[in-house]
Amino acid sequence: MVLEKDRVETLRWRKGRLEMIDQRILPARFRYLAYHGARGVAEGIRSMVVRGAPAIGVAAAYGVALEAIFLIRREKNRARFAARLQKGIGVLAQSRPTAVNLFWALDRMRRLWEKNSARKLPALARILLREAHRIREEDVRINRVMGRHGARLLKSGMRVLTHCNAGALATAGHGTALGVFRSAVAQGKKISVVADETRPFLQGARLTAWEMVQEGIPVTLITDNMAGHLMSCGEIDAVVVGTDRVAANGDVANKIGTYMVAVLARRHGIPFYVACPVSTVDVHLPHGRGIPIEERKPDEVTGFANIRWAPRGVRVRNPAFDVTPYRLVTGLITEEGVFVPGTKKFLRWIDDLKKKRKLI
Amino acid sequence: MVLEKDRVETLRWRKGRLEMIDQRILPARFRYLAYHGARGVAEGIRSMVVRGAPAIGVAAAYGVALEAIFLIRREKNRARFAARLQKGIGVLAQSRPTAVNLFWALDRMRRLWEKNSARKLPALARILLREAHRIREEDVRINRVMGRHGARLLKSGMRVLTHCNAGALATAGHGTALGVFRSAVAQGKKISVVADETRPFLQGARLTAWEMVQEGIPVTLITDNMAGHLMSCGEIDAVVVGTDRVAANGDVANKIGTYMVAVLARRHGIPFYVACPVSTVDVHLPHGRGIPIEERKPDEVTGFANIRWAPRGVRVRNPAFDVTPYRLVTGLITEEGVFVPGTKKFLRWIDDLKKKRKLI
Repeated sequence: MVLEKDRVETLRWRKGRLEMIDQRILPARFRYLAYHGARGVAEGIRSMVVRGAPAIGVAAAYGVALEAIFLIRREKNRARFAARLQKGIGVLAQSRPTAVNLFWALDRMRRLWEKNSARKLPALARILLREAHRIREEDVRINRVMGRHGARLLKSGMRVLTHCNAGALATAGHGTALGVFRSAVAQGKKISVVADETRPFLQGARLTAWEMVQEGIPVTLITDNMAGHLMSCGEIDAVVVGTDRVAANGDVANKIGTYMVAVLARRHGIPFYVACPVSTVDVHLPHGRGIPIEERKPDEVTGFANIRWAPRGVRVRNPAFDVTPYRLVTGLITEEGVFVPGTKKFLRWIDDLKKKRKLI
Repeated sequence: MVLEKDRVETLRWRKGRLEMIDQRILPARFRYLAYHGARGVAEGIRSMVVRGAPAIGVAAAYGVALEAIFLIRREKNRARFAARLQKGIGVLAQSRPTAVNLFWALDRMRRLWEKNSARKLPALARILLREAHRIREEDVRINRVMGRHGARLLKSGMRVLTHCNAGALATAGHGTALGVFRSAVAQGKKISVVADETRPFLQGARLTAWEMVQEGIPVTLITDNMAGHLMSCGEIDAVVVGTDRVAANGDVANKIGTYMVAVLARRHGIPFYVACPVSTVDVHLPHGRGIPIEERKPDEVTGFANIRWAPRGVRVRNPAFDVTPYRLVTGLITEEGVFVPGTKKFLRWIDDLKKKRKLI
């Protein structure tokens, strides 16, 4: 199956429903699943129909809007409406713990609701849906700006490693790390991508490889344990990854295995960049140790999809994320520019963010 | 399926044939495949019916003996017999490039042949078969001694990470790295094992996990990209791996991903041990850069067994091994004791090995 590149819509609004590409079965099959309310969207996030911090944020915003639309037809009493919408937001907040964009999007929707709490309920639902659309559109716009900032860091001919999928599929479009590659190619630079397969969910092998093949950007697939060897052979010139949450000191939570790549990149003097929309910065958290790391079910590790290859009787650990200390991060690529954690410029930027979010 | 622990015979001699456990389908299915000559054994090594440096060495020795037994019935002319046996040895030597035990075993068989070249052919075949049996029995004995030396390095309560499978299945029995764990447990120490799944062939998930479950040693399975996170959380106390070839300076070739584990272990101050029978030391090679790294077929990386999850159009790299510089190696555990690469004791030991192998 081949899709026009601008037609990959990770999330789309169709006939009063949210439709999301089912990322669990890509690239073997391509289908949209439709969602009608907060519970369904929360389950879609939890089961990884949709994944990637920015995409999760957008999905959650739509989840709130869908819930409001669902409730106006069933609940005329303002107090009960409020209680039920609040409950829906609570369910969404419980879906996955690590990506801060989820909480950021829910907060934004909640604040808008508070601001418009005097409105009639149907008007409120319309306002919430408009905001979900806006968050979605902003995300694409932000990724394009981020892509241009990041593309300046890449030279033609570079072989760039990425881990997991921080692509169009992880966002509302264009992607964060893969958006940097798209923007570099759009600037006429020849780059080739090395994709870690990213066990256990295989986002690299299935999603990043698929996006790059669609885009016509050369992509080489490796297993997660090959990155160090390729670096030691001089076959990697830079690393660009996405992130699920960045602490105020620049510590980066991202897909499990990112930390290992960062340590290896440092050993080999290879720049390690993190593509990070500002919404992914959690200014509340002083450092990465405070980031909750989701532990997922064992069956992801003992096999893949419906096959199991590990023997019965084995224990399993399945942390979905790890934390890379800020000292290993060469630069955070954001829509507001590139920031180097630990520098004065970075600290000033974080202070400004805190002020904007009324934390100071 | 449950087997008595002392009944796991990776390779066994039955009715004039070599039988090897088919390690491609473990633990889902357990079966022996039978081999009659050098070509069959070479194909068994190449396709990874048998794998692990010491086991490959034993299999190759049997391959030479089988070829001689096959030829005495068909080739009475001494010169033609010699030419055909030599050809069989050549085919075995081509099966896999990295494990030095293969070449060590073939050399040993060739030298014995030369020493007995005046014998009648049936007597020669018997001598070669006896030598293959001897190499097999020596391997188990060596692993038990190595296990005792290594077990002294582990304390009760330790959580020990291993990569790939350096177990009974990688040897004629007991195992090298897993032999150390078995010996530690036999000494009454409580240890628990963390097994990297070891993509793409999943030797950790399938073979190490299975061996440890059989043995009743607690084992936790993780994907290869989780080791760094567990180390950063203080959940790993030591690393013990096997090796396919050790250079004269102590550089270690082992399953792809070993280098990443070693770099991470160093960062976290965790000892990194390599269990290494003396036959795995390649005194010819001054350093690890000279070790040939096998590049295997792409379909191992684009999926597993008969399933494919990566999209068409993706390129693949599939190096089967990497090289860990000796400075990252805390100790080489051998049947002659534990040696720390770079020390005077280590260099004296290597010099002695060179003398024994008549290189000086």
